[in-house]
Amino acid sequence: MSIEQRLADLGLVLPQAIELPAPIELPFDFIRVVGNRALISGHGPQLPDGSIAPPLGKLGLDLGVKEGYQAARLAALSMLASLKRSLGSLDRVSCWVRALGMVNSAPGFTQQSAVMNGFSELILELYGPRRGGHARSAVGMCALPFDFPIEIEAEVLLDE
Amino acid sequence: MSIEQRLADLGLVLPQAIELPAPIELPFDFIRVVGNRALISGHGPQLPDGSIAPPLGKLGLDLGVKEGYQAARLAALSMLASLKRSLGSLDRVSCWVRALGMVNSAPGFTQQSAVMNGFSELILELYGPRRGGHARSAVGMCALPFDFPIEIEAEVLLDE
Amino acid sequence: MSIEQRLADLGLVLPQAIELPAPIELPFDFIRVVGNRALISGHGPQLPDGSIAPPLGKLGLDLGVKEGYQAARLAALSMLASLKRSLGSLDRVSCWVRALGMVNSAPGFTQQSAVMNGFSELILELYGPRRGGHARSAVGMCALPFDFPIEIEAEVLLDE
Repeated sequence: MSIEQRLADLGLVLPQAIELPAPIELPFDFIRVVGNRALISGHGPQLPDGSIAPPLGKLGLDLGVKEGYQAARLAALSMLASLKRSLGSLDRVSCWVRALGMVNSAPGFTQQSAVMNGFSELILELYGPRRGGHARSAVGMCALPFDFPIEIEAEVLLDE
Repeated sequence: MSIEQRLADLGLVLPQAIELPAPIELPFDFIRVVGNRALISGHGPQLPDGSIAPPLGKLGLDLGVKEGYQAARLAALSMLASLKRSLGSLDRVSCWVRALGMVNSAPGFTQQSAVMNGFSELILELYGPRRGGHARSAVGMCALPFDFPIEIEAEVLLDE
Repeated sequence: MSIEQRLADLGLVLPQAIELPAPIELPFDFIRVVGNRALISGHGPQLPDGSIAPPLGKLGLDLGVKEGYQAARLAALSMLASLKRSLGSLDRVSCWVRALGMVNSAPGFTQQSAVMNGFSELILELYGPRRGGHARSAVGMCALPFDFPIEIEAEVLLDE
């Protein structure tokens, strides 16, 4: 079964891949393909229309763990949208390699792992343990762009 | 001489590799092997029995540099325990590649490098400069899981 | 045209590569070459004489975005100096892969991307979009070594 069929079976919709107004040219690539590796820039949570998903702010202050978990899941969907735009099909991802989950955290907040599970569990659900397994860190940042609750970067391998 | 012999010569004991109670299934891999690369998830300091090593908290507030250095050394031992469980032998690591040392830091604390040396010096002591050398960043986080004083992720290459 | 010629055309001077007083032996490599990959340790901004470039401190408190942008540009030059020392020539870099921009941030600061553009725009200017493109994250740290305004780590591929 294709990954997109699995997304549909889960009732999940990929957001519009991040597109910026024409005059803005970003000085980096959302997805950088070198050989059979694809490096994924930091992604935050997006709504299906491509806009930034609320709520924004810090875990342990503005958001609870469930909201953070959902934000990590939406960041995963945003990454998948960027991968689909770059690769054509999500089935070209042969396996996941690593992810770094950077959680916008109030100083006393220590549940970064529970938040980042929103990303990891979705990737495993879609790709299964053999392809979807990944090394991971989940850590607390004092500030993030757009006041995102989480920003995640990752690496995958591609079928050659 | 094998790496485990060197550990013994240094009087160091690997902790029990992190094992979670049976009902808990983590959605990521402590070690992710892809081709000849092994990606190592973020590890904190552990005691030999596998429990989290005190003291916990922030450098520059709760812990001094010497305690942080020791925590980084214990995080390295925890990584080695995970590598041994995943690979069978620590001698299969042909070389170290990179490490990211994320130090739980009070805002004014700037000695992340001195703390992270607890990791780097042990790896060099065990693997020597040719195999043990690694690129590295040492930076300050506002919060970490379990209130770890440091969490370290890394990449190594394996003999093929 | 060689990369060093482009640097000269832009009126840019590489700083002296970081050299430490002879008695200090660092337990890591500024550049770690494994196969055709070169991993670049975290670099901060340097002046041409190799000393740390002022101003130091936090974005959103001690420095404005323009000063942060300039610091990111100086950190890129410092990386290039380390690459030149390690590789002999900057033309051996066949392409850039990824970069992690860690911005020393006051809690409310959210313009890490605008700061990190100082790095990304210089790399693109020197290497062009095909070779210079890279995946990127730009995030906010609560503390950095030397109170650097930014520390950047990266990976490049080398001509074989």
